[in-house]
Amino acid sequence: MHIAFIGLGNMGAPMARNLLKAGHALTVFDLNPTALSALQADGAAVAPSARKAAAEADFVITMLPAATHVRATYLGPEGVLAGVRPGVPLVDSSTIDPATIRALAAEAKRQGNPIADAPVSGGTGGAQAGTLTFMVGAEPTLFEQLKPVLSCMGRNIVHCGDTGTGQVAKICNNLILGISMIGVSEAMALGVKLGIDAGVLAGIVNTSTGRCWAADTCNPYPGVIETAPASRGYSGGFGADLMLKDLGLATDAARSVRQPLFLGALAQQIYQAVSQAGDGHLDFSGVIRQYQAKEEPKA
Amino acid sequence: MHIAFIGLGNMGAPMARNLLKAGHALTVFDLNPTALSALQADGAAVAPSARKAAAEADFVITMLPAATHVRATYLGPEGVLAGVRPGVPLVDSSTIDPATIRALAAEAKRQGNPIADAPVSGGTGGAQAGTLTFMVGAEPTLFEQLKPVLSCMGRNIVHCGDTGTGQVAKICNNLILGISMIGVSEAMALGVKLGIDAGVLAGIVNTSTGRCWAADTCNPYPGVIETAPASRGYSGGFGADLMLKDLGLATDAARSVRQPLFLGALAQQIYQAVSQAGDGHLDFSGVIRQYQAKEEPKA
Amino acid sequence: MHIAFIGLGNMGAPMARNLLKAGHALTVFDLNPTALSALQADGAAVAPSARKAAAEADFVITMLPAATHVRATYLGPEGVLAGVRPGVPLVDSSTIDPATIRALAAEAKRQGNPIADAPVSGGTGGAQAGTLTFMVGAEPTLFEQLKPVLSCMGRNIVHCGDTGTGQVAKICNNLILGISMIGVSEAMALGVKLGIDAGVLAGIVNTSTGRCWAADTCNPYPGVIETAPASRGYSGGFGADLMLKDLGLATDAARSVRQPLFLGALAQQIYQAVSQAGDGHLDFSGVIRQYQAKEEPKA
Amino acid sequence: MHIAFIGLGNMGAPMARNLLKAGHALTVFDLNPTALSALQADGAAVAPSARKAAAEADFVITMLPAATHVRATYLGPEGVLAGVRPGVPLVDSSTIDPATIRALAAEAKRQGNPIADAPVSGGTGGAQAGTLTFMVGAEPTLFEQLKPVLSCMGRNIVHCGDTGTGQVAKICNNLILGISMIGVSEAMALGVKLGIDAGVLAGIVNTSTGRCWAADTCNPYPGVIETAPASRGYSGGFGADLMLKDLGLATDAARSVRQPLFLGALAQQIYQAVSQAGDGHLDFSGVIRQYQAKEEPKA
Repeated sequence: MHIAFIGLGNMGAPMARNLLKAGHALTVFDLNPTALSALQADGAAVAPSARKAAAEADFVITMLPAATHVRATYLGPEGVLAGVRPGVPLVDSSTIDPATIRALAAEAKRQGNPIADAPVSGGTGGAQAGTLTFMVGAEPTLFEQLKPVLSCMGRNIVHCGDTGTGQVAKICNNLILGISMIGVSEAMALGVKLGIDAGVLAGIVNTSTGRCWAADTCNPYPGVIETAPASRGYSGGFGADLMLKDLGLATDAARSVRQPLFLGALAQQIYQAVSQAGDGHLDFSGVIRQYQAKEEPKA
Repeated sequence: MHIAFIGLGNMGAPMARNLLKAGHALTVFDLNPTALSALQADGAAVAPSARKAAAEADFVITMLPAATHVRATYLGPEGVLAGVRPGVPLVDSSTIDPATIRALAAEAKRQGNPIADAPVSGGTGGAQAGTLTFMVGAEPTLFEQLKPVLSCMGRNIVHCGDTGTGQVAKICNNLILGISMIGVSEAMALGVKLGIDAGVLAGIVNTSTGRCWAADTCNPYPGVIETAPASRGYSGGFGADLMLKDLGLATDAARSVRQPLFLGALAQQIYQAVSQAGDGHLDFSGVIRQYQAKEEPKA
Repeated sequence: MHIAFIGLGNMGAPMARNLLKAGHALTVFDLNPTALSALQADGAAVAPSARKAAAEADFVITMLPAATHVRATYLGPEGVLAGVRPGVPLVDSSTIDPATIRALAAEAKRQGNPIADAPVSGGTGGAQAGTLTFMVGAEPTLFEQLKPVLSCMGRNIVHCGDTGTGQVAKICNNLILGISMIGVSEAMALGVKLGIDAGVLAGIVNTSTGRCWAADTCNPYPGVIETAPASRGYSGGFGADLMLKDLGLATDAARSVRQPLFLGALAQQIYQAVSQAGDGHLDFSGVIRQYQAKEEPKA
Repeated sequence: MHIAFIGLGNMGAPMARNLLKAGHALTVFDLNPTALSALQADGAAVAPSARKAAAEADFVITMLPAATHVRATYLGPEGVLAGVRPGVPLVDSSTIDPATIRALAAEAKRQGNPIADAPVSGGTGGAQAGTLTFMVGAEPTLFEQLKPVLSCMGRNIVHCGDTGTGQVAKICNNLILGISMIGVSEAMALGVKLGIDAGVLAGIVNTSTGRCWAADTCNPYPGVIETAPASRGYSGGFGADLMLKDLGLATDAARSVRQPLFLGALAQQIYQAVSQAGDGHLDFSGVIRQYQAKEEPKA
C-alpha cells in the first residue's frame, strides 16, 4: 500500500521505519530536512509538502507535537485535505484534544475522507520496537481498515469508539497516571520520613490496595525498582513536561464540559513546579523531589 | 496459649473467634456487654476490665477504634499495663498514628512488656475468613513470637520494621489508595462526559499505565466491575468515613515531620465533602458522585 | 472625533452610549442587528462590517467576549486591520489573554497602527454610569492619546505599562479576588458551623487582617452586607461563569510562563463545580453554597 | 485587683507588664525561671505553681503555646482549677481549638468558675504597646467583668459570643489571611513574570476588588510596601510556622464538624513546604518564595 507519513520526530521517524520494514511504499514529509534525509536513506520518497505527500497516497498518517500543528497540517493551503483523494482514510496519531480532532473530522468528511484519531502509548522505545498501543477513535468500518496498517507499528490496536474517543482514552489514562505518581511520591516521601524502609513500604503497597503502575513499575523512590527511571537519575522515561502537556489537555477538555478536576488541576500545577525548577526534561517520577527538603533548616 | 483479646467490634469479634477456633484459651473485654455475651457463648472467658483480662494472659491483643481508646485501654487505672505480667507480649491491631504507638511502647518497655503495632487490611470479610493482612512493626524477636498467633487470623503477616512502622505502612498505603480512587473518579467522570464508554475506558486503563486497584478491582463507575461496591449502590466495602479517618492520620503524621502532602490534604477534604453530604457510610468509591452533576443546569 | 465602536453587548452598548453623550461621532458594528438598531436610534451610524466601521474612523474601540472574537474582528478579511487608515489608534477593551493582544499589536504595528489593551472593571453598572476603571497597556504617547476618550466612559484610567499589561493587571486582580472569595466562603461557613454569629464574625474580619473586598463589600453570607448579592439571592453582580473565564485566563497565562498557581487552579475547579451545579449565572459569591450541606445526613 | 498571670513567653511577659503598669497586684507563674525573675524584677510576686498562683487571685489569666499546655495548666494536680477559689473568673488568651476551651469551661463551671477564651491579634508589638485586639468568647456578664482588665493590655475588646467563639473568630480570620496571602503571592509572582511592574500591579489591586490586608499592608513582593516584612528580608512579622499552626487549628476544627476546606487545607500544605524549606521562622509573606524559580532551567 502507498502510505503518506507526515511528522518525523522522535516518535514518527521510528514508526515510519516500521512501515517501510513491513513492505509499504512510503512518502514522507516534515519541516525538518535532516529528518527527511534520514528516512529517504531508509527508502522513503520525500515530498515537498503535506499536500503533495497526500496526493498519491492510499492512506495518510500524521504524528505531530500539538493541535496547532495538526490543524495547519490538515487544513493549510499546502495541507493534507488540499491534496488527498476522496475516500482515502486518514489517521492522526498525535496526542491532542478531542475537540480539535472532532472538528477536523467534520471538515474531512465534507470532502469524503474518513479520519481516525489514534494516539499511542509506549514511548520512543515502543515506537522503535513496534510494540506501541494505539487507542483508536473511528467508525467500525474505518477501524477495520486501519488495523492491519497500525499493526505494523504496534502490538495493541484498541477500538475506543467513534472519532475523538482515542484521545479521550489517552487523556483519561494519563490523568490517572499523573495523579497516582504524585500520590505514590507523597506516600514514599512520608513513609521514609516516618522511619519505614522504602523497599519494604513499596513491597507492601504493591501487594495491597495501593498497588499501581506508578508504584510497582515506575516507583519514584531511587533504588526501589531497578529498571525504573528513579534508579538512574530520572533519565529516560516519560518527561515531566509531556505529563504537564497531557494534564493540560485533560483540564482543558474538562473545562469544555464544565467538569471539575480537583486533583487533576492541582497535579498539573505540581508538574508545572517541576518544570519551573528546570526538571521538566526528566522522567515525570522526578516529581518526588518536590517533596524532599532542598536544604537543611536555617538557624 | 492463654490470650487476652480487648475490643470486640466489627473487626475484633470475628478475629477473636478465629483465635478460639485455632484452639487458644481466650479472655475477652469490651465496654459493650452484648459483644461480650456473644463471645462468651462461643467459648471465651469474660473479664470485667482490660486490667483483669490481661492479668492472666500469655499474650494480649487489642483492636480499638482510635488512639484515645488505645491510650485509655493501655494506660488507664483499669488498663492493660496495670494488670499484665512483665515479659508478656502486647499487640495493638488498631489503626492509629505512629507517634501514639511509639509513646506507648516506651511506656510498656519500662515495665518489661514488648509491644507491636499490627494494623490490618482486608476488612470485615477478611476478619471473618481469617485472611487479613497484618502490617507489623516490632523488634525481630517479637515479630517471630507474634507470627504464629497472628497467623490464626490472617494470611499475610508482613514485618515492616521497628515499632510504629506497621502504622506507617498502613497509612501510606491508604494515602495512595485514597488519592488514586479520586484520580480514577475524575478520569471516569470526565471520559464518559467526553463520549467514551465507561467499560471501554476502564479496559484501556487497566491494561495501561493508569492501572491500579481503584480502577481494576474497585472501579467507582457503576457496572464496570460487577463485584465492586459501585455495582451495588456503593454498599459494603470500605466506608468513606474510614478513608477520611485514615487520611486524617496521614496528614497529621505528615504535620509532625513538616512534610507537605498537597494531593493527600485535598483528597481528605473531598472525602469530607462526601461525609458532609451524608454519604460517609457508603463505600469510599462513592466519591465519584462528587463529580457527577446533582441537577440539571437552571435556565 | 470620529470613533468606531465594535461589540455592543451588555458592556459595549452602554459604553458606546456614553461616547455619544460626550459628543463624539460614532460608527458602530455588531453581529447582532438588534444591538445595532438600538444604537442607531441613539444617534450612531451603523456599518455593515468591522472593516467598514474602521475605514473612516479617527479612533477604534472594540469590546468583545473572548480572544477568538478579537482575532476575527481585527484580522479577518472584513476586520479592522483591513479597513483602518495607518496611524489611527486602536483600543481593545475585551478581557483576554496578554499573549493574544501582544501578537495583535505586532501585526497592527506592521501597518502603522498603535494598539492598546484596556480591559475594564466596574461591571454593567459602571458601564452605564460611566464610572468604569480602565487598566491600560500602551506606550506612553498612545496612553496620553487614549486618556480623554476613555474618560468619557470611565472614572479611573490607569496606565499599567506596555501593551498587554492592562490584561495582566486585570487577570492578576481577579485571581486574587476569585481566591479570596473562596477563602471568605470557607471561613464564614466554618465559623457559623462552629457557633459564631455570621455578622459578628464578618465585623471582626473586616477590622482585622482578614479584611478584603470579598468580606467587607461582597460578603457571601446572606444578610451580612445588605447591598451584597448574597442578600438578594446572589442575583446581579459578577457571574460565577465570568470568574471561571478569568481564572482560566490566569492559569493559561501562567502555563505559558511555567508559573505554578496552586490555589488559583483549585479555585478555578471550585467555580467549575458551581457552573456544573447550574449556578454559573449567579454572582460568584454564591460559591459559598459549595460549602453548605445540601441535604441532611442519611441514616 | 489581685491577678494571677500564667505563661510569660514573648506575648505573655509584655502583657503581664502592662497589668503591673496599670496598678494591679500580680502573681506570676511559668516553667521558665528566667522569665519569672524578669517579672519579679518588675514588681510581680512569683508562685511555685499554677495552683499556688491562682489560690489567692481575684482573676486568672493564662497565655500558653498550645492546647496541651492549656489542659495541663488548668486540669493538672498543680493546676489552676486545683487552687482557685469558686467564682473567680478565668481568662485563657492562648490560641487553641474551640473544643478544648469548651470542654475546659464545662469542667470549670462544675466548681463554680466562669471561663472565657480571649485570643489576641496584634503580635509582640501590640503586646508591648498594649494595643492588642482581644476576641472574647464569654457569657455577657463575664464579658463585662473582663473588659476593664483586658483593656489594660489591648485597645479593642470584642465580644464574639459564648465560650469558644473567641477562638472561632481568630481561627476564621487567620484562615482568610493565610489564603489571601498565598493568593496575593500567586498574583504578584505571575504578574511580574508576565511583564507588569510589581508596584503598579499592587497599586491597581489595592484600589480594586482584589484589595486586602495581605496586598495593601503586608504585600509579599519586596519593595512594594516599605514597612512590610517583605521589604526587610521577611524578618519580624507573623512567622510562617505560626500561620501553619493556625491553619492546623482551622482544618482540625473543620474536621470536627465535617466541613470541607479545600483552599484552607491546600494553603496549610503550602506553608508546610515553607517550613520544610527552613523558612518557617520568617514572616508568612515569605510564602511567595515558593512561587519564584529557585534555579535557572537546566540545559
